[in-house]
Amino acid sequence: MKNEQLKNRDLKVLWHPCTQMKDHEVLPLTPIKKAYGVYLEDFEGNKYIDAVSSWWVNLFGHTNQYINDKIKEQLNTLEHVILAGFTHEQVVKLSERLIKLSPKRLEKCFYADNGSSAVEVALKMSYHANLNDGKNKPLFVSLTNSYHGETIGALSVGDVELYKDTYRPLLIQSVQTPVPQDMSIEAAQIAAKKFEELCKQRADEISAIILEPLIQGAGYMHMYHPEFLVLVRSICDRYDIHLIADEVMVGFGRTGEMFGCDVAGISPDFMVLSKGLTGGYLPLSVVLTSDEIYMKFYCDYNEYKAFLHSHSYTGNALACAAANATLDIFENDNIIEKNRLLVQQMAQRLQEFEPLENVASIRQTGMVCAIELKGYTPQERIGLKVYEYGLKNGVLLRPLGHVVYFMPPYILNEQECDKMFDVAYEAIQRL
Amino acid sequence: MKNEQLKNRDLKVLWHPCTQMKDHEVLPLTPIKKAYGVYLEDFEGNKYIDAVSSWWVNLFGHTNQYINDKIKEQLNTLEHVILAGFTHEQVVKLSERLIKLSPKRLEKCFYADNGSSAVEVALKMSYHANLNDGKNKPLFVSLTNSYHGETIGALSVGDVELYKDTYRPLLIQSVQTPVPQDMSIEAAQIAAKKFEELCKQRADEISAIILEPLIQGAGYMHMYHPEFLVLVRSICDRYDIHLIADEVMVGFGRTGEMFGCDVAGISPDFMVLSKGLTGGYLPLSVVLTSDEIYMKFYCDYNEYKAFLHSHSYTGNALACAAANATLDIFENDNIIEKNRLLVQQMAQRLQEFEPLENVASIRQTGMVCAIELKGYTPQERIGLKVYEYGLKNGVLLRPLGHVVYFMPPYILNEQECDKMFDVAYEAIQRL
Repeated sequence: MKNEQLKNRDLKVLWHPCTQMKDHEVLPLTPIKKAYGVYLEDFEGNKYIDAVSSWWVNLFGHTNQYINDKIKEQLNTLEHVILAGFTHEQVVKLSERLIKLSPKRLEKCFYADNGSSAVEVALKMSYHANLNDGKNKPLFVSLTNSYHGETIGALSVGDVELYKDTYRPLLIQSVQTPVPQDMSIEAAQIAAKKFEELCKQRADEISAIILEPLIQGAGYMHMYHPEFLVLVRSICDRYDIHLIADEVMVGFGRTGEMFGCDVAGISPDFMVLSKGLTGGYLPLSVVLTSDEIYMKFYCDYNEYKAFLHSHSYTGNALACAAANATLDIFENDNIIEKNRLLVQQMAQRLQEFEPLENVASIRQTGMVCAIELKGYTPQERIGLKVYEYGLKNGVLLRPLGHVVYFMPPYILNEQECDKMFDVAYEAIQRL
Repeated sequence: MKNEQLKNRDLKVLWHPCTQMKDHEVLPLTPIKKAYGVYLEDFEGNKYIDAVSSWWVNLFGHTNQYINDKIKEQLNTLEHVILAGFTHEQVVKLSERLIKLSPKRLEKCFYADNGSSAVEVALKMSYHANLNDGKNKPLFVSLTNSYHGETIGALSVGDVELYKDTYRPLLIQSVQTPVPQDMSIEAAQIAAKKFEELCKQRADEISAIILEPLIQGAGYMHMYHPEFLVLVRSICDRYDIHLIADEVMVGFGRTGEMFGCDVAGISPDFMVLSKGLTGGYLPLSVVLTSDEIYMKFYCDYNEYKAFLHSHSYTGNALACAAANATLDIFENDNIIEKNRLLVQQMAQRLQEFEPLENVASIRQTGMVCAIELKGYTPQERIGLKVYEYGLKNGVLLRPLGHVVYFMPPYILNEQECDKMFDVAYEAIQRL
């Protein structure tokens, strides 16, 4: 089979996510036959370095032998069982490990299937916990330029116009407070002050603030100083507001530490994880929260205070096996330490982009690098030109608007890292 | 390891879905070590017939050899790749097959990870399609007693108080029209009339009606006549309203036909599938819709009419492989035909419950049977007594309130079927 054949079959039957399908009249749609390590390979033998970790999920390469073996083992014993009234070893083990790895105070795990659903769990839990305490606080706060997913609740607390504007009449009440303008500590302090002003006025209505620690992923890889998290945590404590850390994108080492909250040394009331949780293999998400929150729901059934949220595949055994295998690799291969070298190498390569005339700014937080371009209108869609150049030259880059970013699997070696930056450099230089 | 050990570890770290956790001070929490066929087995060698297909997902038994082999094969080539700009054979093949199997007019597949998320996709697509046509119709209609999931959008169109009441201030606009009171054709006609009255008043605001064809799952297995679907389809056509068929539970043979819509011979504008889609293996969901809807989004990017919804694991290759294996079994083993025998056997066994004094009614649609009990207050929670008796006697029954139901995997043999009904009979008789 050739690429063209599968592409044609695809376009007859598939509606792709986050895609204007008409684009594919001219833009490549690339059918992948197999994948291994950092590489995706199409039906004509072309190889692409997966520099975006397939939407920020892959950590240790495609068809990783170790994770494969663990999933196959699990297939032989238990693929899935209902998690209400029942349990299994993989989900218990995974929960124990996540609680041990995550910031203190997070002591219970509630599972779902994707980031959006887990964000909805956190929002509902926060609201419901207050309600069980006799407080009706239906307002959520998020940061300007934030993104937390696509289901109605998750979309409501987002602020990227592109995704949200269309659906305004369907959205629930939320209010945005400014994200720090840049990575400086001063910007963090100014933004925290704004949040405190909001709390002074409306704390009695606000159940929680939700934020992505340090990096706003779909918000064009905007980054801010960890001091902002320290200040927000302290404001939340003073005004009795829950802090929801959406670590769907930043979790599992992307910021350089295991979790974004770790960089700031803070502990949220809810931590939302997905994407890297299964190493990029299977949909799974989890909300971690405190025993304090948990106990607000713990009472006789007939008081009707239980959290009755559920999804059929909650705590799926195969996905949990993939997640446990992923945590094994973190431990056995000392990944967070090892990544520091790659962080340095990327930092060095990033510097080369500074002199380019069409580069507005470059930024990095741990394993995530971004180059913001200038001098183009949105209508020019120059990101697509970088995308096409990348594909032609063996690298999957997928700019967000005018921001070219790198978020590779952690097994990227020095040569592959060089190639990734070389191709991006050429693409940007030729624009 | 013993059951007790894993149970204790579990209760320290896990918050289970749809559960008042305090119940587990007295109610069993059963740790499953392995599963095969219709059986779940705990750490002490006790076996349980999975009469609820692990929350209505399992079709062909646990750790099914054929599905296992297909997933293992897929693990060796491609576990996952981003589905924006990229594609792969499993997702194309699955889409082609679903379109071929589903009612006519459904010609495009959009993927997500769970039923709730897919319901949100359908709601957003329906609203957005109208908006792209210049019509602002932010209102959704659903049936009384309906359930469509737990994320804010899905919850908003549900009507089971137990799940919804707590979150009212967070929900979006929706209105309920009466579900047919019983399985008679008259009840269907009366309910359809009510829906038409609503349309006469508010059709210009209503984007879509969403319903579960024939069986309201979490709505205590309430069932209605297929004529209702025929009438609703016709009303939708006349008033320019989309029909969303939520086949998450009823799809893939539960009603006796492949899809619930098939029983009525109707075609919806959106069909939502999940649960059985992967045979009970992995989280995956899909929304099928028409080319007519698809084309309302198809235009130059800069018109900003694209459907930008996405989830990271959309179209996951491993889940699609499980789904294709599941469809193989449907084809190769002629499942829909074979099931007719089991449908008959269950119908016969159901009759035995009629004389019981505490049985209010019995009902069946295809592979789903329900026995409604009477004479108890909700506070007595007699469902739990049936659940506990079932577990002690080797059958996982999980009543919804006062409704004991059966929704077994399709591989249940005659002896297993008999045991399932025998244990349920004893449990109900002893109440």
